[in-house]
Amino acid sequence: MRPSERQADQLREVSITQDFTMHAEGSVLISFGNTKVICNATVEETVPPFLRGKQQGWVTAEYGMLPRSTGSRMRREASAGKQSGRTQEIQRLIGRSLRAAVNLKKLGERTIFVDCDVIQADGGTRTASITGGFVALQIAIEKLIGQGLLAESPIIQNVASISVGVYQGMPVLDLDYAEDSTAETDMNLVMTEDGRFIEVQGTAEAEPYSMEELNAMLALGKKGIEELVAAQKAVMA
Amino acid sequence: MRPSERQADQLREVSITQDFTMHAEGSVLISFGNTKVICNATVEETVPPFLRGKQQGWVTAEYGMLPRSTGSRMRREASAGKQSGRTQEIQRLIGRSLRAAVNLKKLGERTIFVDCDVIQADGGTRTASITGGFVALQIAIEKLIGQGLLAESPIIQNVASISVGVYQGMPVLDLDYAEDSTAETDMNLVMTEDGRFIEVQGTAEAEPYSMEELNAMLALGKKGIEELVAAQKAVMA
Amino acid sequence: MRPSERQADQLREVSITQDFTMHAEGSVLISFGNTKVICNATVEETVPPFLRGKQQGWVTAEYGMLPRSTGSRMRREASAGKQSGRTQEIQRLIGRSLRAAVNLKKLGERTIFVDCDVIQADGGTRTASITGGFVALQIAIEKLIGQGLLAESPIIQNVASISVGVYQGMPVLDLDYAEDSTAETDMNLVMTEDGRFIEVQGTAEAEPYSMEELNAMLALGKKGIEELVAAQKAVMA
Amino acid sequence: MRPSERQADQLREVSITQDFTMHAEGSVLISFGNTKVICNATVEETVPPFLRGKQQGWVTAEYGMLPRSTGSRMRREASAGKQSGRTQEIQRLIGRSLRAAVNLKKLGERTIFVDCDVIQADGGTRTASITGGFVALQIAIEKLIGQGLLAESPIIQNVASISVGVYQGMPVLDLDYAEDSTAETDMNLVMTEDGRFIEVQGTAEAEPYSMEELNAMLALGKKGIEELVAAQKAVMA
Amino acid sequence: MRPSERQADQLREVSITQDFTMHAEGSVLISFGNTKVICNATVEETVPPFLRGKQQGWVTAEYGMLPRSTGSRMRREASAGKQSGRTQEIQRLIGRSLRAAVNLKKLGERTIFVDCDVIQADGGTRTASITGGFVALQIAIEKLIGQGLLAESPIIQNVASISVGVYQGMPVLDLDYAEDSTAETDMNLVMTEDGRFIEVQGTAEAEPYSMEELNAMLALGKKGIEELVAAQKAVMA
Amino acid sequence: MRPSERQADQLREVSITQDFTMHAEGSVLISFGNTKVICNATVEETVPPFLRGKQQGWVTAEYGMLPRSTGSRMRREASAGKQSGRTQEIQRLIGRSLRAAVNLKKLGERTIFVDCDVIQADGGTRTASITGGFVALQIAIEKLIGQGLLAESPIIQNVASISVGVYQGMPVLDLDYAEDSTAETDMNLVMTEDGRFIEVQGTAEAEPYSMEELNAMLALGKKGIEELVAAQKAVMA
Repeated sequence: MRPSERQADQLREVSITQDFTMHAEGSVLISFGNTKVICNATVEETVPPFLRGKQQGWVTAEYGMLPRSTGSRMRREASAGKQSGRTQEIQRLIGRSLRAAVNLKKLGERTIFVDCDVIQADGGTRTASITGGFVALQIAIEKLIGQGLLAESPIIQNVASISVGVYQGMPVLDLDYAEDSTAETDMNLVMTEDGRFIEVQGTAEAEPYSMEELNAMLALGKKGIEELVAAQKAVMA
Repeated sequence: MRPSERQADQLREVSITQDFTMHAEGSVLISFGNTKVICNATVEETVPPFLRGKQQGWVTAEYGMLPRSTGSRMRREASAGKQSGRTQEIQRLIGRSLRAAVNLKKLGERTIFVDCDVIQADGGTRTASITGGFVALQIAIEKLIGQGLLAESPIIQNVASISVGVYQGMPVLDLDYAEDSTAETDMNLVMTEDGRFIEVQGTAEAEPYSMEELNAMLALGKKGIEELVAAQKAVMA
Repeated sequence: MRPSERQADQLREVSITQDFTMHAEGSVLISFGNTKVICNATVEETVPPFLRGKQQGWVTAEYGMLPRSTGSRMRREASAGKQSGRTQEIQRLIGRSLRAAVNLKKLGERTIFVDCDVIQADGGTRTASITGGFVALQIAIEKLIGQGLLAESPIIQNVASISVGVYQGMPVLDLDYAEDSTAETDMNLVMTEDGRFIEVQGTAEAEPYSMEELNAMLALGKKGIEELVAAQKAVMA
Repeated sequence: MRPSERQADQLREVSITQDFTMHAEGSVLISFGNTKVICNATVEETVPPFLRGKQQGWVTAEYGMLPRSTGSRMRREASAGKQSGRTQEIQRLIGRSLRAAVNLKKLGERTIFVDCDVIQADGGTRTASITGGFVALQIAIEKLIGQGLLAESPIIQNVASISVGVYQGMPVLDLDYAEDSTAETDMNLVMTEDGRFIEVQGTAEAEPYSMEELNAMLALGKKGIEELVAAQKAVMA
Repeated sequence: MRPSERQADQLREVSITQDFTMHAEGSVLISFGNTKVICNATVEETVPPFLRGKQQGWVTAEYGMLPRSTGSRMRREASAGKQSGRTQEIQRLIGRSLRAAVNLKKLGERTIFVDCDVIQADGGTRTASITGGFVALQIAIEKLIGQGLLAESPIIQNVASISVGVYQGMPVLDLDYAEDSTAETDMNLVMTEDGRFIEVQGTAEAEPYSMEELNAMLALGKKGIEELVAAQKAVMA
Repeated sequence: MRPSERQADQLREVSITQDFTMHAEGSVLISFGNTKVICNATVEETVPPFLRGKQQGWVTAEYGMLPRSTGSRMRREASAGKQSGRTQEIQRLIGRSLRAAVNLKKLGERTIFVDCDVIQADGGTRTASITGGFVALQIAIEKLIGQGLLAESPIIQNVASISVGVYQGMPVLDLDYAEDSTAETDMNLVMTEDGRFIEVQGTAEAEPYSMEELNAMLALGKKGIEELVAAQKAVMA
């Protein structure tokens, strides 16, 4: 029995609120249960130096947590003077994942920044960031199309992300903090709507996992991703 | 005529939402019109080194803005590796203002951190932070009393903050971004509910201001503070 | 009775020594009693990026304290690797104050840096920095005029600064360290020679201050500023 | 055909030189073809603050590259003033992987640092670091046993790491730089000698990968890990 | 002919002003011609961690330059966020040189910080810092003896420093900036009053120097040191 | 008797291995006994900003130590976030020394970086770095000549470096760590093959040294440099 009383293959309640803030070109608040992340997409009409003149665009991401998004207060990274290794690892993952959803040639010479700021954390902040960040990105791109700055969408297909794990010997979907902090294995999946993989990142926390456990987790993840893509499409409908 | 079509002495709509996030001992979302700030108060049972053994507590504040809380994206301070001078100046002001509301001897040897994170900015982020931060602080203190950790409240009286200014020659209350960015003078007031001053910070942006203008601004501010204190009390009733 | 045995409305002895160092375009040593600050103005024929091509100049300031300018040794900020929040707040204040004295359009596309370095501190270092910094700036501008690089002075009028406060219930002018560290209220004023305000920054350290106390402090400040402007003019005569 | 003319399931030549430097408790030079990494294990009789008094040890890792270990010179991280996100991500991976090989309770209250410094890079530096780092760790532990500081080995089983990928549509083992930089998918595996997983990290660089491709890569990886474990055991025999 | 019209073996005018600032335990302003350095010695009743319990004291130094101590304005190191390599090299030299003058065992478990801040630079700032820093250190030690905190002086003998060089083929003493910036060789000597060496640091800027030139420079330096030691003793008489 | 049982004027065994790594334009491993340094020279076809358009090249150096190159593990500078004062001082010395070997006008508008990374330390790491760095530099220059990018060598003459010192009252050549850490005086010499000086840096660690001791050390150094230049020439023959 999971602490949350969910079934092994059951996502937490997912909600995606559009236009959560007013200034960003694309803005959503995404919730995976008690995990809440503001995803803001910003369009800038420049590209980083390494892409200048290459007739393509760029998508990048930054990630942060409010100091008291967590059970005990974390030190503010701006005050500490640097982003932790964990923060950098997560924002690199979000950026790679979102770039895989976009044909950068078709985006034109512009950059889309996706800022994912966790205002409340209960496990799965990176998977919520990718799933919500995709929607913020898509809204910003729709706006570019609406303004005539893009003729057609550079989005290839939907991308979403979910965690899976082994909790007390049982493969489970979408771990919350109580599960994640005691799970034997924690795996984050980033997948496309056609069921292929962009990222598989699975870490044995306590005990190495077998090929059978890996396959069970991948199957759970595939089901979760399908539901998340449906939620993404519902909000854009 | 103000761009917002408000009267010279009219505040923007103020709202204070309690328990906006789940982990903090005190949490509110405060809005001054389109300016929205999450204020989270955290209680820690320690004091900074300079107060150890002095049988008193401490109240301190940190301030941040989401990169896209503003009209164009600002660089994330955690990524830049330091807090700007403006950020540090504001968080020092919030901390001083909130300490003036509290009898630190009565607080006991503990620290309350008040994190003010701007999720949407339209002028007046520091005054909203102080006004909402006071409520978050008060909720956290009520919780300490409820838990029997404090016998009586160390709060002396309510503290709130509002901006005043001179806009096109006219003294006005509670400047939004459109007004603030073109005002001749911008002044932030922090006051107690009994009408005395904790902070007066007035800066001539374009033209020095006269004693008469100063007095007119102080009178507007007094009226605004009274309304804000009423809003603080309503939410705690 | 003040510790210094001064009258409530009495400044400390003010002296301004011209050409204190040899390289700067404008250099003074200013003393407010035992507080001593070297103010060096540097002219550079460039403007910061945000002003390029806008046909105006810029005035900016930096502030520092020698590690042993104070009663006990402070950590050197260059060695600590960053300027404290207090330092940044003061240098932003000095810069804003001096810009208010200058018509930046008339200055032409150049920057004047005013470096204020405290070699001995006894309260009032920021007010001495602004008052002396104005003279250093004026000397540098005179030099530009003398070299034919400026046709007329861009200085609008003199700017000076002084502190006022409430000490043991009595409003007083120009607090030294012994007074400042125990005053109930500490207020810094930056004013023009025609009696208007550029900055009012008043902080209640112990007890909030009333409108009556505020008015008494402003009146003292006005008198002090008049004497400082006279001292500035005497040295340039 | 691979650029290296290797078979799809063929490792590069692996060599492990013991006692490569004289001071470290465990020191090896490991080569995966032209990739060469010095792995030095240091034993310190302390644990990090978060483990004090918990009667267990710790294993951690740091990773670096000589500036000219690569085809063009990289900026020295010590001179840049920070480790890149990539470096931090890799050293966190090495640390997690090696901790999974050790029963930290049996290690006692001590820390083993494993420093992996790349002196020549040709793809696979992180997998060589983990594989060689395990041997350095094992040598250091043997030394502790030899000195009577440990009664029995806390090593659970051998851990090794290898990359797999999809190169021009073909799943391949142990990518060198020429393959890695153009592969569609790059996956790093960390496995135990009994064929279970500690880490699976697979990233689609160009095109998402299917479940079939994932399974083919995992099978190649299993074969490579078996050969690497044999090489680790040979050097310790 | 030297630009300064001095003889090859002629020092610039040296002056040492005692009690230049009021707070430091030892304070002098030293001038070598137009080079002016404030040297402040601070006594703290602690030692650095690596000396705790070793029943000896410590002497250390920090060095800084006011931004406009030089012909063109240098960036403020506190604002740049770090001390340059040059600054660190100089302050390490000052510290080593002054420690060589003191019997650290006799100093007791306390630290003397010597802060050398250049307010005007014209070559030879490090040699002036050492020579003046010694006097500030000596004054602070006299004060400790006067307060009964030290029974006898831990100073072994006087230490002073001077530069020598080869300027247009001619060995010269005490280079000013005009000479230093074009000299073929620049050498800094730190010597004791009995004519022995604490530091010899000679750098060929343009052309390697021969043993004959080295010997000529050392002879000039010895003469200069004798004059500086006399000046140090005169001020303490 | 020296701990190493060497004669007072005897170098440790010197070896220089060419092409130690594969990517650098010039790469050697140099050993002075147990001290081992990788010296990699990189050619870049740019010059630093201060030399642009001046029709000359630049030679610069960086220095680092592997964390466990020493008897106890040192903190990794990249992780600490800055290079120590010692590191900066050494790399400035290496750079100056190597520039003295090269006619920068003849080098053309390009920069040669010489990275010296200590993989095992036993005293004399800076002298080995300079001596080996010269060879790496020379190999890189030979490669430029071979590619037709340089018509003639800009190298003026060989440069090498060695330490000398006073150990238990006896002047000795080439101190290893056991000698260096207890020597009364430690001096590093950088000399040209014609016996002139580029750098003399001698520090009294315990007792000031006399002119006689200085002369004895310089004579030992001259002998050592001659042998090192011979070793440099042998490897390039």
